[in-house]
Amino acid sequence: MSHPSSPVSVAINPERLLGDLRRLREFGACGIGVVRQSLTPIDIESRHWLCSRLEEAGLDARIDGIGTVLGRSRNSGPALLIGSHTDTQPQGGWLDGAMGVIYGLEVARALAECSETRHLAVDVASWIDEEGAFATCLGSQTFCGEIEPGVAGELRNEEGKSLGEALREAGLDGVPLARCEPGRYVGYAEAHIEQGPWLEHQSKRIGAVTGIVGSRNFTVSFTGQQNHAGTTPMALRRDAGHALVELAHRVYETFPEHAGERSVWTIGRIALDPGVQSIVPGRAEMNLQFRDQDVAVLDRLEAHARALVAEADARGRAEVEMTESGKRSIPAMMDERLRGHIEDAAERHAPGDWISMPSAAIHDAQVLARHMPAAMMFVPSIGGVSHAFEEDTSEEDLVLGAQVFATAAANMLLG
Amino acid sequence: MSHPSSPVSVAINPERLLGDLRRLREFGACGIGVVRQSLTPIDIESRHWLCSRLEEAGLDARIDGIGTVLGRSRNSGPALLIGSHTDTQPQGGWLDGAMGVIYGLEVARALAECSETRHLAVDVASWIDEEGAFATCLGSQTFCGEIEPGVAGELRNEEGKSLGEALREAGLDGVPLARCEPGRYVGYAEAHIEQGPWLEHQSKRIGAVTGIVGSRNFTVSFTGQQNHAGTTPMALRRDAGHALVELAHRVYETFPEHAGERSVWTIGRIALDPGVQSIVPGRAEMNLQFRDQDVAVLDRLEAHARALVAEADARGRAEVEMTESGKRSIPAMMDERLRGHIEDAAERHAPGDWISMPSAAIHDAQVLARHMPAAMMFVPSIGGVSHAFEEDTSEEDLVLGAQVFATAAANMLLG
Repeated sequence: MSHPSSPVSVAINPERLLGDLRRLREFGACGIGVVRQSLTPIDIESRHWLCSRLEEAGLDARIDGIGTVLGRSRNSGPALLIGSHTDTQPQGGWLDGAMGVIYGLEVARALAECSETRHLAVDVASWIDEEGAFATCLGSQTFCGEIEPGVAGELRNEEGKSLGEALREAGLDGVPLARCEPGRYVGYAEAHIEQGPWLEHQSKRIGAVTGIVGSRNFTVSFTGQQNHAGTTPMALRRDAGHALVELAHRVYETFPEHAGERSVWTIGRIALDPGVQSIVPGRAEMNLQFRDQDVAVLDRLEAHARALVAEADARGRAEVEMTESGKRSIPAMMDERLRGHIEDAAERHAPGDWISMPSAAIHDAQVLARHMPAAMMFVPSIGGVSHAFEEDTSEEDLVLGAQVFATAAANMLLG
Repeated sequence: MSHPSSPVSVAINPERLLGDLRRLREFGACGIGVVRQSLTPIDIESRHWLCSRLEEAGLDARIDGIGTVLGRSRNSGPALLIGSHTDTQPQGGWLDGAMGVIYGLEVARALAECSETRHLAVDVASWIDEEGAFATCLGSQTFCGEIEPGVAGELRNEEGKSLGEALREAGLDGVPLARCEPGRYVGYAEAHIEQGPWLEHQSKRIGAVTGIVGSRNFTVSFTGQQNHAGTTPMALRRDAGHALVELAHRVYETFPEHAGERSVWTIGRIALDPGVQSIVPGRAEMNLQFRDQDVAVLDRLEAHARALVAEADARGRAEVEMTESGKRSIPAMMDERLRGHIEDAAERHAPGDWISMPSAAIHDAQVLARHMPAAMMFVPSIGGVSHAFEEDTSEEDLVLGAQVFATAAANMLLG
């Protein structure tokens, strides 16, 4: 697919960008990492700082009744919504989410400084709780009307604190919610670190996201017969662990035939019961997860997994059952027009150094994409590391990413 | 191999036998099971009762300084030592060990009541702690001089109590040890429930034990690279769990080619680290155990396991290492002459209903066999169940077993 080359190019301010990223890193700094879970005092403190920076950039900014920061453009006309999240994992990196929000801030400033783009409207959001201390993508879901705050108030974090309580402590009790205004937006754009090794492995610096993968999670349980590991002859055993290993082996051997090019599948947990060296396991359990951006591929993998389970059950070594566990996450395709602007901007600022690729992790863009055209852009993660203190991206890649994102954003509004 | 038919047949008293088995069951009764771990107050109480029953049978009986009950015959001439154990697992069955001791008591009484055998000398032992609350086969090892009581005093049970403390509480502090008297014994004989399903599966009622299997235990560890289960492409993964499943599958597939007819092998424990559904496991571990009565077969299986580990390591999915864990148990062959007497007695009392077979579980006979000719006889375990409250054997099989064992014992001394 080809796109007209980007009509405008917007200059960002690298020092200002890096300065704000470093300033935000100080809220909850813990060695080289950051601990800033949503609605904790340090998270609220960082949100007040962010509001002041957005106001300085000329936006009307406030924290809404669920904790999301929304900075609204004072310009008229259709707006581009740019967002990500500033909350972190319990042991988080400094860039995950934070980078995309500061990119939004820098894009708003850069567009305001350029004569060709200063009339354009950019809103900037830091969605509360993308990392799910209370509920994954809580802020973007609330903004889009997918979660009712009355119900959400009863959600509890790991310490048992309710969301309602946390909001009261944050002084957000009774504060109005920011809600998506119908007709206001041409679309949503989010930049994020890749959180995987693919860009680095391909020696690329920008990823234009084609879609966000969906995932399905299953628990497979095996019921055989627990027995003495010395006195039970091999031919008389109903070894649940043996049945599990056979099925897991079949998964590893045959999933490639049914998978898409970028599908992933994982057996992350195996448990044998009773799990001691001198007893033939009577029960066993494993998790099976797979992800792809195409629902048809997910359906095919699930059908194949069910066939393998039926085959294992029929073999008779154990009774084998598979049940879906956790919430199924649905893939989201990114908008082709918006993606075209990311690709054009990438080609302008980093010719040949970009690829299009799916996102294998969950993002707020997955929620927004159900309500408006959405786009995502990745920058490389060093060593593919994320959700860890060591998470990092080179300064050159951080600056290039913001540059590409600013040009793409302008042309999304102009194009 | 053929044997002269047994020259004498000794009649046992079924009601007396079953009465003593039922009486012993009351010590520590827990529903249909028994909880009577070694050196607990209820165990000591049962040992005093056993001494009195052995005295009534005409033996000199006492509890020695480690807790073993030894009833010595007052007859002169070479003696047959008959024993097993009356301690149980934390949740034990009523027959495991107890049956063999009461068989010894009944054999002593039955021989004394028969004119052809009343001059014969039978000693009866209940070895302390075969089940290993402090140390597996503690009593038989102490009797044979394999364990020094000074050292043993520091052994501790699961509650942290030392053996020395337990002996003091049992009033056995300073009591002399019973030690094997050189030249006194023609051999050792032990009867036991099979603890497996083999006799039942073959519709046989008596097993003449050929040898007691040895076991080897290994821990196999896998070191790969922990990663995000969404963002790490399949081709870039070093999944320790995948490496483990491949090796375990190879074990199940190829061990039959290297095993003996009655070898058993078990993967009783598998652990993935961190063991959660969304993370590619960076480390994994499994136990591998195998048993056979032939050291050459054990050597062959170990060499094969090491070859599989080297193959898995070379494949590069993870670094794979195998280390031996726990104490290697050495197979013990039973004495052919003594076994011949068990087979002759079985053929006399249950023609065609017996087989010769290895013991896949550990017994005190494994210790005694290192010091004198030893023999073992099995009766069927219903459903192969043992080390569980539900463990049982039919009354007909209990009576037949004692009958065969008594005739065999007499002929071991006469033959």
